[in-house]
Amino acid sequence: MSRLDSFIRRLEAQRACLDLAAALVQSLDGPVLELGLGNGRTYDHLRELCPARQIYVCERQVAAHPDCVPPAEFLLLGDMRDTLRAARESLTGRVALAHLDPGTGDVAKSQALAEELSPLIAPLLCPGAILVSEPAVAADTLIALPLPAAVAADRYHLYRRITRRSSP
Amino acid sequence: MSRLDSFIRRLEAQRACLDLAAALVQSLDGPVLELGLGNGRTYDHLRELCPARQIYVCERQVAAHPDCVPPAEFLLLGDMRDTLRAARESLTGRVALAHLDPGTGDVAKSQALAEELSPLIAPLLCPGAILVSEPAVAADTLIALPLPAAVAADRYHLYRRITRRSSP
Repeated sequence: MSRLDSFIRRLEAQRACLDLAAALVQSLDGPVLELGLGNGRTYDHLRELCPARQIYVCERQVAAHPDCVPPAEFLLLGDMRDTLRAARESLTGRVALAHLDPGTGDVAKSQALAEELSPLIAPLLCPGAILVSEPAVAADTLIALPLPAAVAADRYHLYRRITRRSSP
Repeated sequence: MSRLDSFIRRLEAQRACLDLAAALVQSLDGPVLELGLGNGRTYDHLRELCPARQIYVCERQVAAHPDCVPPAEFLLLGDMRDTLRAARESLTGRVALAHLDPGTGDVAKSQALAEELSPLIAPLLCPGAILVSEPAVAADTLIALPLPAAVAADRYHLYRRITRRSSP
């Protein structure tokens, strides 16, 4: 499989997971949290999927297409480790859908970032909320959900926020 | 359609056109010419499609994934307006498959570049060669070919090199 094939599959998986996540949270109130703006393509997709929701966006430095720059009041600008901590007061237990795409292109780096961020992301989610993530995420309050049929295992990840993990 | 949808369609169109082009030139001898390396994804795809062909790559400044950097002897480094002129001696009438993806993300700029480059690209192609191009290209010796079924008109372009355009 070429890098072009692999890239297309990754984007198709990302879109299928975002589409499913938006459907799964339809009955929940709450904003969307986009963790990483990048060029703004998934932000634009989330806007289309969730036109009635507020979408908060974490980004270190905005470099998106001008059409895809969030309004200033929804932009959490800076290192996510800082901005997610700062967002606790306003967002804890409120977010209905979060999407984590570090977009580093480096699997180990993305995984390390996901491990560092997951304790900061999970508390912001409301019960039943969905986290869509490229890297795998582990947290006591998150359970992995089945992926859309066309998405290969481990290409993307979907989690639901539960109140606590039940004992085995 | 979101920017994510649009980007996926563009990549799928690109891949479908490259796949078809590689099939169409199977009976022709000659190298491949990749006009713009970028991140190296389509170069990698062309390597897979045409493992037995030499692949020359034009690029101003290499910024591709390390796995996708062509061997130095196939890299035409610099402004394509200069490197394509310099390549006349070795490549005129020899190239079996060329791919032009300026990757500027700016339609008008890509189109302007295509207009400037087409008189430099067309003479390098052998009779029957295929040019795959994101921007539309006009040249007396190129005729537009039907696109693969899944590709919308104008999303990508396919041309065949003829010896001369027949009179209307």
